[in-house]
Amino acid sequence: MSRWAIGIDLGGTAIKAAAVGLGSGILIESRAPTDTASGPVGIVGQLATIIADLYREASMIVGPDDFAGVGVGAPGAVDSGKGILSYPPNLPGWTIYPLRDELQKCLREKHELLIPVFLDNDANVAAFGEAVYGAGREYRDFLMVTLGTGVGGGIVLERKIYRGAHGTAGEVGFMILDFEGPTVHAGIRGTLESLIGKKAIIALALRMIDASSSGSSVGKLCDNDYTRLSPRHLEQAALAGDEVSLALWQRVGSILGVGLVNVVALMDIRKFVIGGGIAGAGELVFASARVQLKRSIHPSMYEGVELVPALLGNKAGMNGAAALCFGEPS
Amino acid sequence: MSRWAIGIDLGGTAIKAAAVGLGSGILIESRAPTDTASGPVGIVGQLATIIADLYREASMIVGPDDFAGVGVGAPGAVDSGKGILSYPPNLPGWTIYPLRDELQKCLREKHELLIPVFLDNDANVAAFGEAVYGAGREYRDFLMVTLGTGVGGGIVLERKIYRGAHGTAGEVGFMILDFEGPTVHAGIRGTLESLIGKKAIIALALRMIDASSSGSSVGKLCDNDYTRLSPRHLEQAALAGDEVSLALWQRVGSILGVGLVNVVALMDIRKFVIGGGIAGAGELVFASARVQLKRSIHPSMYEGVELVPALLGNKAGMNGAAALCFGEPS
Repeated sequence: MSRWAIGIDLGGTAIKAAAVGLGSGILIESRAPTDTASGPVGIVGQLATIIADLYREASMIVGPDDFAGVGVGAPGAVDSGKGILSYPPNLPGWTIYPLRDELQKCLREKHELLIPVFLDNDANVAAFGEAVYGAGREYRDFLMVTLGTGVGGGIVLERKIYRGAHGTAGEVGFMILDFEGPTVHAGIRGTLESLIGKKAIIALALRMIDASSSGSSVGKLCDNDYTRLSPRHLEQAALAGDEVSLALWQRVGSILGVGLVNVVALMDIRKFVIGGGIAGAGELVFASARVQLKRSIHPSMYEGVELVPALLGNKAGMNGAAALCFGEPS
Repeated sequence: MSRWAIGIDLGGTAIKAAAVGLGSGILIESRAPTDTASGPVGIVGQLATIIADLYREASMIVGPDDFAGVGVGAPGAVDSGKGILSYPPNLPGWTIYPLRDELQKCLREKHELLIPVFLDNDANVAAFGEAVYGAGREYRDFLMVTLGTGVGGGIVLERKIYRGAHGTAGEVGFMILDFEGPTVHAGIRGTLESLIGKKAIIALALRMIDASSSGSSVGKLCDNDYTRLSPRHLEQAALAGDEVSLALWQRVGSILGVGLVNVVALMDIRKFVIGGGIAGAGELVFASARVQLKRSIHPSMYEGVELVPALLGNKAGMNGAAALCFGEPS
């Protein structure tokens, strides 16, 4: 049998888990609501049960011999060397917690499973998932940007996760693109997330609808209750030809492009994989991001610049978490 | 004897060369105007003569046995693996030229010197010089920013030069901080160089002087001929308490700080070494850059942030070029 591992995407809403084959990708998966109320110790217990169940089920299919371990992608700051998760957003009651070792201990003591556990940040494992199984397979170096409620990023350099000295590399949402502009996020002016995070997109859309003389058809999609306006409505309206929504996504892509210009200039990374819920707007956003890249990267650095959609959707995390167990990919 | 090498800083105005001891730093140095009119072949001949002279002179002091080679820092795009220099600014008539191999050949054929030659970008070798001999000695990872006519950068990661896949990493002057702002450099709007390159600083100073109701004392320093206004005048005026000049340098530092915020967010680099002629304004600039870093970096990434002046001045290039020959520093 070929090697396989279990990959876990620990989120504030759901725990997604999958048994993943080194060459074959996801074999079986499971999903459960995160028991956030029970705090770190409770969640460790929940994770261990999910892992033990999945391990037994998958072992019956692929055999237990070539099992490589469990990888976990978690939100917040992760010290992957020490296996410590700090202050995960959306997981109330957590501070600084040795998640890797506690999970390993729980698997051993409660489930009699002596298996290696790897831990990394969710944005990093999503990028690594795309590197091994998705849109980044052909790229040696790339940045994956996840456009969702927030704007996150994970960097793959020489086919490895680039974490930085403190594990906080790739926080593209905190790059400043408009330091004298009107937008603010987390108290910082003009960051990428302040400009194209979900809240910023909705606020921008409302301003653009307000300012439009000919109006927008997006109102129909949210029953003219603009407090319910979502990126999905704006995507549908744009696909139906609504000019305000089209201009909105063009601006979002254009600003995303500005952020990526800075990545090219600073890191000499020229490949970009874009994922996340907002990226559902797809080509609407990508096309204008590419125009911006072409316009705003000095010609001496433009060769080889590419921007592509992520391929694994919300399975990138499980794939990448499992791939942590396989060692460095080729 | 301890190991030594020759380091060359090839500039558009001057060729600076030094014999550098691994532990002791610069032993002897020489300087000559760059013979730009003679093109690549002529400059290779000039470099070889300078190197041969310096090699013989230094050999008499430290002996020839522990000579490690010649390192060259050159402006423009450098493929350090292949030893190729492309389109160096300020060196007219150059296109793409195998400088390393041609220099090695000239040393061998004309001077009977069979010695290894290393080539890298001038911003990279300056950063490496600070890493080995200067302000970056204690830092594992840092960015060196050179504030001069342009705004350049060199990155040291894990005590090695970080070049990127195409050798263009560290081009901080091309980061975009104000994508809807009024400033443009090289056709790109709102880049760091468009904001705080030398031309931008002078233009900003003239606007600020113009807008000031109480006037500025800097006029006296340039005989009220504002076409002659230089950063040096603005530095002197600020040191003498001129409020317009003080506000100018504060703004320059503040914008520099914004650029560095992006480096923290993207690369998780938290140490900054600032050099170059404009950095002569020193603390005037650094203090406001530090304020900006504190204000605009998310607290989760702020620990350990430091900004210090470069220590080697215009000798960083020679030091770093020589250090290329010593292999990886500890």
